[in-house]
Amino acid sequence: MSDSGISPLPVQYADVAAASERLAGHVRRTPVLTSRTVDARTGARVFFKCENFQRMGAFKYRGAFNALALLPIAARRRGVIAYSSGNHAQAVALAGRELDIRATIVMPQDAPAVKLEATKGYGAEVVLYDKHTTSREDLAGEIAAERGLALIPPFDHAHIVAGQGTAAKELAEDAGALDYLFVPCGGGGLISGCAIAAAALSPGCKVIGVEPEAGDDATRSFKSKTLQSCHNPETIADGARTHSLGKITFPLVLSHVHDMITVSDAELLSAMRYLWERMKIVVEPTGALGAAGLFERRLPVAGKRVGVLISGGNVDLQAMCRLL
Amino acid sequence: MSDSGISPLPVQYADVAAASERLAGHVRRTPVLTSRTVDARTGARVFFKCENFQRMGAFKYRGAFNALALLPIAARRRGVIAYSSGNHAQAVALAGRELDIRATIVMPQDAPAVKLEATKGYGAEVVLYDKHTTSREDLAGEIAAERGLALIPPFDHAHIVAGQGTAAKELAEDAGALDYLFVPCGGGGLISGCAIAAAALSPGCKVIGVEPEAGDDATRSFKSKTLQSCHNPETIADGARTHSLGKITFPLVLSHVHDMITVSDAELLSAMRYLWERMKIVVEPTGALGAAGLFERRLPVAGKRVGVLISGGNVDLQAMCRLL
Repeated sequence: MSDSGISPLPVQYADVAAASERLAGHVRRTPVLTSRTVDARTGARVFFKCENFQRMGAFKYRGAFNALALLPIAARRRGVIAYSSGNHAQAVALAGRELDIRATIVMPQDAPAVKLEATKGYGAEVVLYDKHTTSREDLAGEIAAERGLALIPPFDHAHIVAGQGTAAKELAEDAGALDYLFVPCGGGGLISGCAIAAAALSPGCKVIGVEPEAGDDATRSFKSKTLQSCHNPETIADGARTHSLGKITFPLVLSHVHDMITVSDAELLSAMRYLWERMKIVVEPTGALGAAGLFERRLPVAGKRVGVLISGGNVDLQAMCRLL
Repeated sequence: MSDSGISPLPVQYADVAAASERLAGHVRRTPVLTSRTVDARTGARVFFKCENFQRMGAFKYRGAFNALALLPIAARRRGVIAYSSGNHAQAVALAGRELDIRATIVMPQDAPAVKLEATKGYGAEVVLYDKHTTSREDLAGEIAAERGLALIPPFDHAHIVAGQGTAAKELAEDAGALDYLFVPCGGGGLISGCAIAAAALSPGCKVIGVEPEAGDDATRSFKSKTLQSCHNPETIADGARTHSLGKITFPLVLSHVHDMITVSDAELLSAMRYLWERMKIVVEPTGALGAAGLFERRLPVAGKRVGVLISGGNVDLQAMCRLL
């Protein structure tokens, strides 16, 4: 991380609340949807927080906007850099445009054209690299040092975590007290922030993290209380292919999350299909993890008030149709 | 129509307002979504009334519920009948279940299994017929006469029209005054009701009906002021394959609608894809007619406040993936 980079901090609910004020008017207050069909299926009263309707299509915009908005003036003038092949790239690019901060995004040469175009469309400079010959961390580090750019990490930073937590804050405000909250888990930024907000606004709410079976590092870390990792897990939940939880997110997950569970890709696909066909919302595979956890694992939710975080909706329709 | 059937009446805004009270708590007040991307594309401020989120997945539930709720007690006890291969079948079935009225639905033998199951799932008795040998009108008429059932028509009835109009009433309440309102047009029930509501709540709003090119009977009827028809038009907009406007809806369209336009199936598919990919909502082809009219026809909407009625989201994902 460059010397203008933002450094890790612990996160309290006050940070989530402050992020919420900072984000107002910039980040969309996404709708909370309910479905009598889902309630009948689960026996619970279920509230879906639809971050697939967030700007750029995923919750990632919350954390990116918060992190960029909290940069010191000098760092804002120099600009930011991020590496990502997924939603974080578009989130940093769009937040940069909104805050008038120059953004550089390091992306693999073979990233889907639609994601490259979207990132460029938000005004970011895209630097391509060859996955087989170059380490994106090294490349981003070099450019950051050379240009004095602040590196914006995808999840392992206090400002990112606080920003993501605003999603659960809004859900608690709109849906009222919850008994359960199902949240997708990749690097743990979303679930950490949401668990902090839930603990403050909905005491006693059990926050359940959901991972793909093939990328179950966070579940193993949670159960063993030792940080575990996965190397490039094969799963359709591309947003949860992260190597491991982070230095900040692991302790937050340990202290605030009630349980971690996994679902197979087949269960995930089935949940995603159900959300498309019954709820009429387009959800990406990673975005359906929480719903799959609710539908496929028999937790005692009957008669309970249950929140489900739908984390994103950025799908390549053609690829998705092949899967379905 | 059997002697217990409901008979046609003209429709005033007071009927829409009364329907709105009748429907409260039974029909979902669907969300109104906006998109900065759509606003940037069109230059307008666009409000999407999302009836794809309506119960059973389409606006049809509004009219069906209103019509069933207005039946005299004796007719309610005897039950209702409808013929439909589309959303009207499910709407009458679900309204019947909600109001404790026995519903019989006449459907073609080769209707998609998913629609048959949904209709039965709502507790209706399904009577199948062979399209090649039987007229559904005759069959439904026979059963209605035999059992004393009230026939619930899909669009050409005052109570149906008034019910559908509640969608535009809610939109005007939630979005404020509109300059334009784009509405899909099949038999004209939705657009008639919506135009009546718009005239009352958003005076000066130009209501634009949108039809598929291949099924342009309402457009021709509107331009020529003489009722025209289409026979089984080939279009992906299956909800707009209606033969013609009705005895009630044609005069209402003539008096309340500002203009009628058409879009090709290719334009419709492109609009539908855009709604899925950018707005993250699942919309059926017919449901995307209004959006296609806005996107593809160059009406002077720049700087204006524009409503778009998304009429439904019931798609067979497999069939849709083949189209996309």
